[in-house]
Parts: sequence; structure tokens; C-alpha cells
Amino acid sequence: MNSILVVGSVALDTVKTSSGRSVEALGGSATYFSLAASYFSSVHLVAVVGEDFPREHRGTLERRGVDLAGLKAAKGKTFRWSGKYGKDAGAATTLTTHLNVFKTFRPTLSEVQRKVPVVFLANIDPELQAEVLAQMQAPALVACDTMNYWIDSKPAALKKLLAKVDVFFSNDEEAKKLTGAANALQAAEVLSGWGPSVVVIKKGEHGALMKVGSKVYVFPAYPLAHIKDPTGAGDTFAGGFLGYLASSGAHDDIGHLKRAMAYGTTLASFNVEDFSTKNIEDLERDAIDERFHDLSDRMSVPRADDLLKSRRAVSV
Amino acid sequence: MNSILVVGSVALDTVKTSSGRSVEALGGSATYFSLAASYFSSVHLVAVVGEDFPREHRGTLERRGVDLAGLKAAKGKTFRWSGKYGKDAGAATTLTTHLNVFKTFRPTLSEVQRKVPVVFLANIDPELQAEVLAQMQAPALVACDTMNYWIDSKPAALKKLLAKVDVFFSNDEEAKKLTGAANALQAAEVLSGWGPSVVVIKKGEHGALMKVGSKVYVFPAYPLAHIKDPTGAGDTFAGGFLGYLASSGAHDDIGHLKRAMAYGTTLASFNVEDFSTKNIEDLERDAIDERFHDLSDRMSVPRADDLLKSRRAVSV
Repeated sequence: MNSILVVGSVALDTVKTSSGRSVEALGGSATYFSLAASYFSSVHLVAVVGEDFPREHRGTLERRGVDLAGLKAAKGKTFRWSGKYGKDAGAATTLTTHLNVFKTFRPTLSEVQRKVPVVFLANIDPELQAEVLAQMQAPALVACDTMNYWIDSKPAALKKLLAKVDVFFSNDEEAKKLTGAANALQAAEVLSGWGPSVVVIKKGEHGALMKVGSKVYVFPAYPLAHIKDPTGAGDTFAGGFLGYLASSGAHDDIGHLKRAMAYGTTLASFNVEDFSTKNIEDLERDAIDERFHDLSDRMSVPRADDLLKSRRAVSV
Repeated sequence: MNSILVVGSVALDTVKTSSGRSVEALGGSATYFSLAASYFSSVHLVAVVGEDFPREHRGTLERRGVDLAGLKAAKGKTFRWSGKYGKDAGAATTLTTHLNVFKTFRPTLSEVQRKVPVVFLANIDPELQAEVLAQMQAPALVACDTMNYWIDSKPAALKKLLAKVDVFFSNDEEAKKLTGAANALQAAEVLSGWGPSVVVIKKGEHGALMKVGSKVYVFPAYPLAHIKDPTGAGDTFAGGFLGYLASSGAHDDIGHLKRAMAYGTTLASFNVEDFSTKNIEDLERDAIDERFHDLSDRMSVPRADDLLKSRRAVSV
């Protein structure tokens, strides 16, 4: 089931961080997701751009093998977002949002697209997410994300959607807001009661947790002393996670789900090291695996038996 | 080197959290540290209490085998602290601090105490920490902690002390304040330049990181949906960490240092599940190891090879 359909936004982002500024660069939830997932699975992108969408950005996605048959070019301008980040590279402050052609986005899937086995509904209107899902022909795995805007404006539609979703990605603030829970753990508990068998709560620099059935798994972020631009980290995480999971062929296996968390963390860590999508456009698979193994090592707790065998240090 | 000397505070704490209230209960940095470390190593406590210190609290420490030869009972009242926590169980708001007999605390170590191989200088005046350290006879391992108060009032003395310390524990806010760094990673970089070969930065519910040489290791917290009282979590972490490390007999070994992080995390997770020291006064070593292994499992990333061998899930 090594093939994923993603529906979401493709945008031009203007971003200011403590490391500098990036103007009308490639962005959007579906873009970050597609690039990250493309290292593991084949990706079919469903989105809309305007007549002004730079040809080079199409090239960036095509070079990663992303199928752009579903990337519609509509009359008008491409969705634009601008925001800024504080010194701590935490949550963005939105400066402007111009939906433009995205305002009337209403995707109709092709026969080929309907049959893709894995679908990721990136953070768009939950009613639109449900419409897309309804067009899918018995998908094996359905995942979605959302954002504060939809939690405030359409909580009922979102809750209804979650009943049909296998994997739900949320950041911790959104999860607490949506559920009214006091912390991420309690939020995950409530969310898994609403339907998703896997709930992933992303905490930025503090890592992420995953609830599968009644058990919670915990993961630190990859340690980075300098973050240039956190835009798209969450979607990149979801792309690495779902791209790997789809490629594993065993999306119920807890071992593969844990590896998916580590691949999500790995891809997100690359993404925040440069502006826009620059650092995830052209990675070597070896570089991804090297950081994946480095992360695994930095967070592993060795068994006592293994230490007795391979101790290198001086005993005092 | 299975023996630790700890110098710090023994206090009576009054605490209010969203789970309730605890009045004049056993507290203090040296108390939490001693109880946690006692599950792994023998502990010699050096501190002062007043004439009003309840006999039952001595009993609590004695039942854990903590050597109280260095617990002086002085004329006057025991150190008292009161504070409250918000719904998120984050940083405490101090309501009152009455140093009482602690104000004139000036420990003189006995011949036996001077020879203890591992020393933990809990968060007291850095000049006092240095005085205690100067009395030690060639300790094999020196660790210390501090707090905002000393970072503000005696930063130079603290920095001087760090040059003589092997392991420095700090929470992330304190580390950033002390170094002026923008994040915990950068703070750890600066701090390790000041002397300690191991820098541990504690982030509460977000886990902890450890810098050893040029490499940073990252650890999530044990996932708990309900925290009754976070008081003493940091000192309990240090006790679990150092207690285990001292017992390992190989404090330079990265494998044992990683296991020490996981034991620190484990002990701290027990501590916050009840008020005061209630939940770390009488643990079974088996219960500690069970949670240690549970934590290791929740945060482990399996190797692909291992999954091919033991896959249990249904492939789609």
C-alpha cells in the first residue's frame, strides 16, 4: 500500500524568524507533507494554485516524484500566508492570510485517486476533508490533521470526521483546546475515544507522543541548537510518519508505528534547519537513515546485560 | 563507590495544587534526593533541622537506610516553604520562605563524611557548596544543582563552583537564565564549557536532556495523565540518576549515564504522583525496575531487522 493521496494547501509563504526572512517561498500543508512522504512512498497531491504559481515550485515537487495530476491551476492568485516567530521559534504569529483560489477549493477525485490506499487529509475545512474522504474507495488507512481555526469554527464537523479516521495528528495546544483537557496525555485519551486508533500529539521542540489503544509512547525531538524556520514542521512530521508507515505495509504494528514516529521526527528536524522547504527538497535517503539512527541512539536506554558485555569506561 | 554524601535542605513544605493541599509535610532538596538515591546506594545526609522537626520524618529517612549522623538539630525552627501550582503543574509560585535554622547552616564534615566517594551539592548558596566540597577528600564524582535565587544573587560564585563539578543538574529556565542562551541546547553547550563533563537539563513534563562531551542525549518524561504535586521532582530525578550511577561503578560510561537518566525519570514520575515524599518513601525495587523497563519500551525505536523477525500485526 505504498501510495498516499494528500489533500491540503499549496501556498506562497512570507516568513520572518530570528534567523532572517523568506519571501513568497514554497509552502502549504500538502507541500511539506508531500516532500517528506516522497522519501518513502509515492505521493498523489490534490490541491489548487493560482495562475501566478511559479513553475520552479512545480519542478521541486516533480523532482521528488510527486504526482501533480491533482494540482489544479485555477484562475486567480495562489494562497498566500505570512507570519513571524519569536526568538524561541515556538508558535507563529499570523500576519496575513489571503486564501485567494483556495477559497473555492472543492476537489473532485479521479478514478485513479479514489483507489489510493492511504489518504492524508491535511488541515483544511473539516467538511471538505469529509467530502474528500467520501470519494475514496475503501482506503486502508485514513489520517488527518487540523488547526485552531477549524477547532474554533467547526468543532462538530471535526469531531464527526475523527470518527472515520485511523490516525489523527494534532499539536498539543490544539489537542487541549479541542478536548478541554488539562494536558496532552488527557487530550490524547479523549481524542482516541472519538475514533482514531492512533493519536499523535506533536509538541515541537519537546517531541511528540503517540497513543495506540490504551498505551502511550513518548519521543523526544531531535536535538537542534539552531532552528531557522519552524514553518511546516508538523506537516513534515506527518509526511515522514505516514510515508514510512505506508511503505512498511503493516500499519497496525507497534514496532512500525514507533519507527514512523522516529522518521517523522527526523524529517521535521531537517525541515526546520532552513527556510521554506529548502532542506527537504533534495535529501539523500542515506542522510535520512543516518539521522534516524543517530536519533535512536541519542534516546536509547541500553539493557544492563549489554553494558556488562561492552563496557568501555573506567570503573572508579 | 556505592556511597553518596548529600548536602542540602530538609524542610517542612506547605503546598497547594489542583489536586489538593499538603500542610507542613516533609520536604527539602536533600530529603527528596536522599530518598530517591537510597534505592541504589547508601546515602549520608548533611543538613540542619530545628527542634520542632517531627520524629516521624527522621523515621521516614531512617527506614530507607539514610545515614542521619550529619542531620543536625539546631535551636530554633525548621526551614519552611510554601507554594502553589497552577492547573498545568508547571513552575511553583512561592508564597512564603522562612529559612529559620537554615539561615546559619555551615556544615563541618566528619572524617567519615569527607571520604565518601560521590557528593551531591543540592541547591544551597554556591559559596556553601564550595565550602563543603573543599572539605571532601578527593571525591571520585561531584554533582550539584542550583536555583534561580542563586543565579540572580551569586552568579560568579556559581560559575566558579561549576569548574570543580562533574555533573551539573539544572532546569531549562535556570540554564537559560544562567547562560543567556536562547534554548536548552545552547545553554547546555555553554554550561559544559564551564567545566562539568555531564550537563543534565530537566524540562519537567517535557523530559530531560544530557550533554556528555560534544554529544546530546534526549529523554522524554514518563507519561502521566495526572500529577498531584510536582514539588521535589528535580531533586528526586537527581537522586535516582546519581544513586544509580554511583551503584554502577562506571560513571564515565555512556550506557550507564543513559540508564541513570531513565532511572532519574522513573523516580521523578513516582514522586509527582502524590504529595510530599509519600510516594517515594516505600517503593519496592521491583516496582522501580518495572516502570524503568516500561519507560524504556515506550520510548524505544525498534530496528527494522527485529521487526521482520517478530512481526505480529496484519499486513494490509
